[in-house]
Formats: sequence, C-alpha cells, structure tokens
Amino acid sequence: MRTYEELSKAELLDLKSDLEARFNAVKAKGLKLDMSRGKPSTEQLNLSMEMMDVLNSSTDLICREGIDCRNYGVLDGIGEAKQLLADMMEVPKDNIIIFGNSSLNIMFDTIARSMTHGVLGSTPWCRLDKVKFLCPVPGYDRHFAITEYFGIEMVNVPMTPTGPDMDIVEELVNSDPSVKGIWCVPKYSNPQGITYSDETVHRFARLRPAAEDFRIYWDNAYGVHHLYDDKQDYLIEILMECKKEGRPDMVYKFSSTSKISFPGSGIGAIAASDANLAEIRKQLKIQTIGHDKLNQLRHARYFKDIHGMVQHMRRHADILRPKFDAVLSTLDRELGGLGIGSWIAPRGGYFISFDAMEGCAKKIVARAKEAGLIMTDAGATFPYGNDPKDSNIRIAPSYPTIEELKIATEIFVLSVKLVTIEKLLEK
Amino acid sequence: MRTYEELSKAELLDLKSDLEARFNAVKAKGLKLDMSRGKPSTEQLNLSMEMMDVLNSSTDLICREGIDCRNYGVLDGIGEAKQLLADMMEVPKDNIIIFGNSSLNIMFDTIARSMTHGVLGSTPWCRLDKVKFLCPVPGYDRHFAITEYFGIEMVNVPMTPTGPDMDIVEELVNSDPSVKGIWCVPKYSNPQGITYSDETVHRFARLRPAAEDFRIYWDNAYGVHHLYDDKQDYLIEILMECKKEGRPDMVYKFSSTSKISFPGSGIGAIAASDANLAEIRKQLKIQTIGHDKLNQLRHARYFKDIHGMVQHMRRHADILRPKFDAVLSTLDRELGGLGIGSWIAPRGGYFISFDAMEGCAKKIVARAKEAGLIMTDAGATFPYGNDPKDSNIRIAPSYPTIEELKIATEIFVLSVKLVTIEKLLEK
Repeated sequence: MRTYEELSKAELLDLKSDLEARFNAVKAKGLKLDMSRGKPSTEQLNLSMEMMDVLNSSTDLICREGIDCRNYGVLDGIGEAKQLLADMMEVPKDNIIIFGNSSLNIMFDTIARSMTHGVLGSTPWCRLDKVKFLCPVPGYDRHFAITEYFGIEMVNVPMTPTGPDMDIVEELVNSDPSVKGIWCVPKYSNPQGITYSDETVHRFARLRPAAEDFRIYWDNAYGVHHLYDDKQDYLIEILMECKKEGRPDMVYKFSSTSKISFPGSGIGAIAASDANLAEIRKQLKIQTIGHDKLNQLRHARYFKDIHGMVQHMRRHADILRPKFDAVLSTLDRELGGLGIGSWIAPRGGYFISFDAMEGCAKKIVARAKEAGLIMTDAGATFPYGNDPKDSNIRIAPSYPTIEELKIATEIFVLSVKLVTIEKLLEK
Repeated sequence: MRTYEELSKAELLDLKSDLEARFNAVKAKGLKLDMSRGKPSTEQLNLSMEMMDVLNSSTDLICREGIDCRNYGVLDGIGEAKQLLADMMEVPKDNIIIFGNSSLNIMFDTIARSMTHGVLGSTPWCRLDKVKFLCPVPGYDRHFAITEYFGIEMVNVPMTPTGPDMDIVEELVNSDPSVKGIWCVPKYSNPQGITYSDETVHRFARLRPAAEDFRIYWDNAYGVHHLYDDKQDYLIEILMECKKEGRPDMVYKFSSTSKISFPGSGIGAIAASDANLAEIRKQLKIQTIGHDKLNQLRHARYFKDIHGMVQHMRRHADILRPKFDAVLSTLDRELGGLGIGSWIAPRGGYFISFDAMEGCAKKIVARAKEAGLIMTDAGATFPYGNDPKDSNIRIAPSYPTIEELKIATEIFVLSVKLVTIEKLLEK
C-alpha cells in the first residue's frame, strides 16, 4: 500500500472524485450524528438507576457518624463518602474533601481562591503582573477555559507517549517563578488516552518549583475508567510521591463520580496535603453551608465500597469497549498505512485523539459537518482554541450507538481523505 | 412594677441571691441545650420525607424540556425548577438561575467574581485600594464573614423597625464610590424578624449610587417563612422596583429552599436583570458542568407549584409557632417591664433578637453557658464580631423541643437578670 503522498496528481484526482461521490451519497441522507462530547450514553446512565432507590422516605438518613444528612452541618463530607472516594482516588480518607457534583467547579474555585488569597500565604495572583500555567497539549478544553477566564497565560507543553515532555516542564517550573501550575489528566488523558509513565510521575514529584505557590493540578478524571479487564494502565499515586520527595503541598488531585454514577448528579472531591486542605476548609466554611450530604449518602450506600465501584465500572466498560472498537477498526481499515493521520488506541477514558496532516483539522471538522456529523471543534484541545499545527481532532465515541458510530466514522474518514487530498493537490 | 434601675442596692442584692440560688439549681441539673443555630428541627425535616420518593428507578427522569436530568447539560436550571423558584421569589422565570444547595455559595461566588472580574465591565475590586459594604446591624454573621474574607471594609448601618436607616444608606451609597454593596435580609430579617417597609424598598430602588458597580445584595432567605396565616408581613418585590426606577441592574436577589425542603440538600437561586444574569452565565459555563438537575427535578415534582410550597410552609409554621410562643411568653412574663432588655415578636423567619442593657451581652451568653445553654456568640450579629454596645443576642428557637425551649429560656432570663444586676451594682 502506498501513502497518499506517494500518489501522483492524477491518482489523487481519481481518488478524489470517487471519494466525493461517496461523500455526497452520505450527505444526501441528511444524517445528524455527534461525536463531539465526552458524554455517557443513556445505556450507561441506566446502569446506575438503582441508585435512585437507595434512599427513600423509609430509609434511615443518618450517616455512620450519627449525623442527619438532611440537615445543615458537615463541611467536608460524610465519612462513608470520604472513604469511598478516598479509595477511588488512592489516598488516605483524611486527605480528601467532598464537594458538590462538579470537579470542574473545585478546580475553578481553587484557582479563584489563588487569585484573591494566594496559596498558603503567597501573594494573591491578582496582584502579580504575570501568572503562567503549563498546558500539556493536546489537552482538556475546560481546563484551558478556566485559566483563560482568569487571564492566566498558558504555555503549551507537548505531550509524548509517556506524558508531558518533562524536560520542558522541569526547565520552566524550576526556573520561572511566574509558572504557578500545570494542568494534568494523568490517566487515560483527554484526548489522547495516554497514562503518565512511572518516570514521568517521579519527575513530577521531584520538581523544585521556582514559585513556592506552584501546584500540579492533577485531574484524575478517568482513574477507574478502564476499557479492558486484562489491559489496564497503571498510574503511580502522586500525593504519596510528592510527600516522599519532601513536597507534600505541591499537588492538588481532583476527581468525581460524574462518569461513574450520573454526570449531572455525581459527587466530586479534592485530595491534597493537610496544609492545603486546611486552607481550603478555611474558605469552605465561609463559602457554603456544606455540600449535599444526601447525595453523598446515596453514593456511599449504592456502591458500598471500592469493590462495588470497580464492578460497576466493568459494566460501563462493556458498553464503551465495542464503541471504541467500532471507531478504531474503521480508522485502521480506512486510514491505516495511508500516512494521512495517526491515532492511539487507548485502554481507557473517553476519547480517541486523531492527528491529521498539518493544516487539515479545521477543514476536516467542517467537511464532516456538511454531512451531518458534529465533531469537537478543531483547536479545542489547545489553549485559546489555537492548535498551531491545525492537526488535532478529538473523537468522543461514548454517546452515539454503535450503528451511528460506524456511519459517523465513515463520514469522518471520508472527510479526512478528501481534505488531505485537496491539501496535497495544492502543493 | 418597678424597673431594675429603680431598685435600691439592697433590693438588688436580695434579688441577686434569690436568682443565684435558682440559677445554681438549674446549673446542677447538668443540662445541654442549644438556642444558637437557625436550624430546622427533625420534625420539620420529616415534613419533606415524601420528597425522597418522588424520584426512583422507575420514574421518568426527563424534565419537561425533554432533557435527561441524569446527564450533562443545562447550565442555569431546568424549566420546572426555574418556574417554582421564580414564583417563590416573585420574579419572571427568565430572570433566575438555579444553583446548587447553598444560596450562601451563590453570594460568595458573586463577590469572588466581582473581586477578580468586576461587575459588568467595572474595575475588578481586587485592583481597588478600598472596597466597602454597608452592613445593617444587627445582621447575619455569614454575610459579614464573606465580606471580611475578601478584605472588604464593613460599615455598620443601624436597623430601624422599618429596615436599615435609609438616611445613612442614601448618604453613603450616593456619595462614596468605594461603597459597592449592602447586605440585606429584607423579610423577617436575621436576627430581628423585621420586614422592610414599602418606603424603605422604594428608597432602595431610588438609590443613585456613586459606584456604577454598586449592588444591593437582597438575601430574601425567609420570603415564604411566615409564622402565622393571619398576620403576615408583605415585602415589595425589589427587582421590579429597581427596573421601574431605571436601575434594573442594581440588585441581586438570593433565595433557597434550605428551610423549606432539606437544609443540606435544597436548591438555591439568584434572581437579577438580564445583563447581570448574562454576566453570571459567562462565569458559570467556565466554572461548572451545571448543577444537580435531579435534585431540581425532585423539588419541582414534589412541590408541583408555588401553591404546594405555600401549603408546605404552613406545616413548618405549625411546628415553629409554638416554639416562638414558648420563648416569647417566657420573655414577656419574666422580663416584661423590668427595663433590662427589649425584643420584637417576629411574624416569620427563624430568630428572636434580644437587646440587653449595654455591656451585658457577652456576659449573659457566658452565664447561660455555665448552665449548659449554648447561645449564638454575642457580637456575632455585627461585622468583625464586634457589637459596639455589647447588647445584641440572637435567639434561635427552631431546633430544640418546646420543653427544652422552656427550660432554655428560663436559663436565659435568669442569666439576663443576674448579669444586669451585677452591672447595676458596679455603678
């Protein structure tokens, strides 16, 4: 098989007219397909329906500590919810605080607090001329949106198959006191599905930041979100690593049950050192009357313990695996060996990341849209929506049905081929 | 009957020894009583138990707009929850945003946003040398805690029987551009139970603030929290008033169902002008994946509409009324005409405010504690915990049983009498 770059102009033109015919045929169907959102499907939501029965009017709503979960009180979470999420996040129970339904909200509030109050006594960031965050790219658009909202300058750091390029991370963090943070999705990363290697985590823990208020924003959103029983990535637990290296305060770890129970009604948590948590509690007691304890109790009683959660995640995997397979097998079959795109088959998480030929991503997404397929906006995986190579496209296979995914991926590969040929013909 | 100030030293000493004997007798019982927290009782929580059955595993969890409440999506609340809370807050449905379980959290976030981003284009407050808030006193300690947390200077404004002293409010707001807000609990105020008069609300709406980013923080926490069917206070709706006066953006209104359904698991909301809400949505879409829609749906289906909620509040009133009566009748009987304290019998809300002789409040609270009765800290109803007259004490009758309240109020009046006599004897 020859790559597209090896084809003659005539061959490309032939191929193009054939592809266009196929594309127009699909387009004529007037389909509406969406591979843009990392959103669980209805079938996945149904897995947790029994959680709706766990609490009812005849249930005891007192948690193990003897607190009536209906009333005011308890700032940082009821014990059984803390235990469940601590096990999920692989940290001691005393090192987490439970929040509301959105871990994004915890991250936002963490940065908002750093802006107005600094971090453990440091100068509030709003009084500094320049605050920078490192952003491994491609990455999660909602992380970048938070730092952009607060006027924080974002610095791209390229991802490698083992995590962010640590030479660059070390150089910037250890020398530049305006670098206050780095966004990480360390396991089954969004969008590439990469898990940081042992070496990468060790190097994170051994950072010697120029800024005392530098923190690693470790968003372990997909910690238990494996696709396979037999092929699972392993990630070293970062809190303990930082502690071992004498920097216990250097990391905030975030997670939630959004893609475990219900996306809109899960529970989120932060894990951090004692000193960091003490600072957060100081804010929390001013900010809120406490988070929803009934929902915490509902989760704790439904999952019972981490084993219950692991079992539950197997059922999610059973639904997600064939969807990932549907996309990946079409990519393999249609684009393999053509030299016009690359991707990684992830072992977990919610995304497949596709790298098109440079300068093609926006056009591919636009082309797919013509045929009724919504993809995540090209560029969204980069700070300021700006992919310098215009190459990365995020594919989210979770929400559509397998049948829809098959058609959607056909449209996608047709779009990739057409746009790439047009690009090559321009040369 | 003579007042204490009319008694001779000998008479005071006699009285003192009699009261001390009674106080010591109560103290010897080793009681544990608490009138410190505006916390609904278990009996009140039980009123809403059927809400736990409204959603279960066989319920349709799709809201009227056709959205699956379990999944991601919907930033500012599902339609039926908006309608319910809009009716409760007496504003159009399009002028509210539903949040999570804590309206305090909405207030905190509103001020945090003003600090980092300003208000509708104004200079972020964190860049200003001085930001001031007016605080009608006595008032709600958690309001004052928020402004203190952000380093905002708080200026006391005395409460009158018709609301804050509007001469002072007008003078400060209309002349000082560093005055950015005023905290208000306009109906059944915390702690006095005062409802702002029509004239007061009109004067609020006619403010001409020196600061374009001045806002009235209208925390209508007790809008539907009447104690009586036949004696209810009426409060003019402030959003409409400000609109009529050409200042639609001048007010943020807050409320929640915390003291209607479950304190820890209610839903909170903000009501404001289109421009204010647009600014809030701009933040919200960065901050969160959206608030808990299942809990919104649960509330909407349980109460059905505002009539259902009004009925429900009658049942709360039936529980609370005799508790207020128990406290008030003891205050009347034991302290009436003695000239050593004053209070207002409120028609709603959660508190009775007691004003002791100047310089006595701290000692009274300490004395009560000796006999096992916890009161709200003296001073808590003032910014920085500093009651310049050391006079105000907040009484919260909701949580204890009537029997407990009777004993607690006896301890309280004994403490008031003893401390006042000691004060008079010092002269």
